[in-house]
Amino acid sequence: MSVQTARISALETYDIRFPTSRELDGSDAMNPDPDYSAAYLVLRTDASDEPEGHGFVFTIGRGNDIQVAAIEALRPYVVGRRVDELCADPGALARDLNNDSQLRWLGPEKGIMHMAVGAVVNAVWDLAAKRARKPLWKLLADAEPEWLVSQIDFRYLSDALTEQDALELLRRGHEGRQEREWQLTERGFPAYTTQPGWLGYSDEKLSRLAKEAVADGFRQIKLKVGDDLDDDIRRCRTARSVIGPEIRMAIDANQRWDVDEAITWTRALAEFEPYWIEEPTSPDDVLGHAAVRRAVTPVKVATGEHVQNRVVFKQLLQAGSIDILQLDATRVGGVNENLAILLLAAKFGVPVCPHAGGVGLCELVRHLSMFDFVALSATAEDRTIEFVDHLHEHFVDPAVVRDGHYVAPLSPGFSATMKDESIATYTYPEGRFWTADLAQRVDTDPRTGATV
Amino acid sequence: MSVQTARISALETYDIRFPTSRELDGSDAMNPDPDYSAAYLVLRTDASDEPEGHGFVFTIGRGNDIQVAAIEALRPYVVGRRVDELCADPGALARDLNNDSQLRWLGPEKGIMHMAVGAVVNAVWDLAAKRARKPLWKLLADAEPEWLVSQIDFRYLSDALTEQDALELLRRGHEGRQEREWQLTERGFPAYTTQPGWLGYSDEKLSRLAKEAVADGFRQIKLKVGDDLDDDIRRCRTARSVIGPEIRMAIDANQRWDVDEAITWTRALAEFEPYWIEEPTSPDDVLGHAAVRRAVTPVKVATGEHVQNRVVFKQLLQAGSIDILQLDATRVGGVNENLAILLLAAKFGVPVCPHAGGVGLCELVRHLSMFDFVALSATAEDRTIEFVDHLHEHFVDPAVVRDGHYVAPLSPGFSATMKDESIATYTYPEGRFWTADLAQRVDTDPRTGATV
Repeated sequence: MSVQTARISALETYDIRFPTSRELDGSDAMNPDPDYSAAYLVLRTDASDEPEGHGFVFTIGRGNDIQVAAIEALRPYVVGRRVDELCADPGALARDLNNDSQLRWLGPEKGIMHMAVGAVVNAVWDLAAKRARKPLWKLLADAEPEWLVSQIDFRYLSDALTEQDALELLRRGHEGRQEREWQLTERGFPAYTTQPGWLGYSDEKLSRLAKEAVADGFRQIKLKVGDDLDDDIRRCRTARSVIGPEIRMAIDANQRWDVDEAITWTRALAEFEPYWIEEPTSPDDVLGHAAVRRAVTPVKVATGEHVQNRVVFKQLLQAGSIDILQLDATRVGGVNENLAILLLAAKFGVPVCPHAGGVGLCELVRHLSMFDFVALSATAEDRTIEFVDHLHEHFVDPAVVRDGHYVAPLSPGFSATMKDESIATYTYPEGRFWTADLAQRVDTDPRTGATV
Repeated sequence: MSVQTARISALETYDIRFPTSRELDGSDAMNPDPDYSAAYLVLRTDASDEPEGHGFVFTIGRGNDIQVAAIEALRPYVVGRRVDELCADPGALARDLNNDSQLRWLGPEKGIMHMAVGAVVNAVWDLAAKRARKPLWKLLADAEPEWLVSQIDFRYLSDALTEQDALELLRRGHEGRQEREWQLTERGFPAYTTQPGWLGYSDEKLSRLAKEAVADGFRQIKLKVGDDLDDDIRRCRTARSVIGPEIRMAIDANQRWDVDEAITWTRALAEFEPYWIEEPTSPDDVLGHAAVRRAVTPVKVATGEHVQNRVVFKQLLQAGSIDILQLDATRVGGVNENLAILLLAAKFGVPVCPHAGGVGLCELVRHLSMFDFVALSATAEDRTIEFVDHLHEHFVDPAVVRDGHYVAPLSPGFSATMKDESIATYTYPEGRFWTADLAQRVDTDPRTGATV
């Protein structure tokens, strides 16, 4: 069967869970025991010479099956569709998925259903980039501004960002992109590391990992805070004394506080010169973030990993709530909505520093930041991508960080493809790891089924 | 087994769907073909002398199965629990459910997972009210202010509503409640009707139904708008000419517009003196609603049926975005979060006019408004509950409207219980209606499976 008439023949899903809660990697003030997971999908075609499209939603364990079910509900929109048409216009698919007249009620454009849309849309982008034989960042950077604008749903945005605004920003970003592409492939894109700062770590481990981070070339580290103020003061002091005054130290409360508490707590840590306070309060609280930002300056305010869609990002920018926008690759409706979010950030002059870690987020977000650098904001100043060094071994095209910089991926696609072996081992509950684990286990928490 | 030691023995779920899309009942600018549905649950106990607790999420068709799966994910939190303890403190359960350290990632507190929490929490309130042999509104109105405050999660609210604020509001509301309870049981609570105004109806049908509404004692009707301005002008003129100048006419755009479009369109209909414009734009757009409100006054701005949680309601009030708060019984995290929302509204002096219709929403929200009238805001002025006269026949304790007023329900519970016969008939896809339907059907839309 020729490439021109290939169709999507299957949307396969996998409930993949890694037992990370046993190591306290990823522990923070709101998420003490995450089992990093992926609600994963593969788009297969009926042509032997066509690549597959891979996508996923990152979750932290329980409920990953519900997320998988939501992805499966979208199957009728892609199976049977022509591959060339889908890949030529992922934006049309994104619009169809978001506007399904019945599924929309379950959001709208937020939570499980919206993340499912994002995973399917991202899988189509993965497929499109593989077919174009380009890494996604380059496919986007090479694209005509007019086409990129056609990929964006401007609904609910026009009071802050019009199609004309977007076109002008993209045209400006288009200039000089060859030079920046060369810089990018040469030097990579700045990374910061959350490795030293998980709440579950001892001071000794924090100290050792912070030292290593600096030695490894990172110019910024991040510490989780918000559980106990005395602990946080001690940990911030420890970290600052290890890294010295030049390295940036961000702190992250993971939504732990109310507005007043966020202000008090952040001020109490101000002497250690945190660069930003991340997720000081509810990700839904635009006005709350604005109040915190006014009160804690010069500490910057950052949020985004739990921001549900472009409408909330729009308001965070309109209200002057944030200094740093932390987009997430699998929280919103896929690449198309993230293009809108990158454009909003560019319009308001706010740097984008994506959320990563988890399962495969480092792999995905680097494409978005690298596109932003090459062909939109056109600068890496004050831009940096989170890096956490775990679970990369499960990906075919893993994130690589050298001397504190993400190396630009050159393989075709969106780097979402997980290794067959990893999928087979960690599929829940029938994968090899989990069947062996269940056979061994004596006790589980009867309420939560937690793997402790 | 005695009442004291009874435990929850099962959480059973049902995917119930009514084929409403065939009649265009419920059609609006964003939801052209809803199949009104309920992701329904029953809490059973191991005691023969204990009632059951019923709860549900209203959806509009596809995806109802995902909503059911989300409810099932919460089963471990209730099965095996003591009935008396659960019913004595539904707030503790609500907190546990919202803060499940892994499920929380799927919201947080929004979308499918949050609605699932609401359904389970509401089922416990239904059980608690049945055990107390009171309708829920009276259980709440009779409760001590201190206990009601203990039922509320103030996280993310304290910059707008403190525990002390809540206690004072409830104590004030407590005064004179006997007199208001008497008024309520005598006269009922004002209703308005959306019956005449669905987009799919002809002008003739609109005209006839509007006339009937006035004859039936309604003092307010509502028209769906937002599909075509010329149509809306004609329909508003028709309705206004039928109902005269004294009856209030609300209009409802169901999120169809961007901010500027909402302003232009609403102004174009202003000559027909709409009382409020409902859902002019995205339910997530706090600042957008504020901009619309400033521009369209004296037309009031109303929203809420898709507002995801108390944090967004808080901001709608803080930013002066709304004149009318339209809470929904199954969109947020259950009675406990709706108590917080009622208190926020009371604090800001904004009247609550609940969203209803759908499946069972009229049955539920009347309890919340009646509690508000008897023991919180202490007034029915400018308060009114939406009424749509369909699907009530499936409920054991159906909503009854007389002379434009909801009659106060007197049966114990939250009125969530659906008739066994209705459940058996409309369970999807194995219920009697759907098996017969499927056997008859020749064509379905292969993409959506729509029942057209």
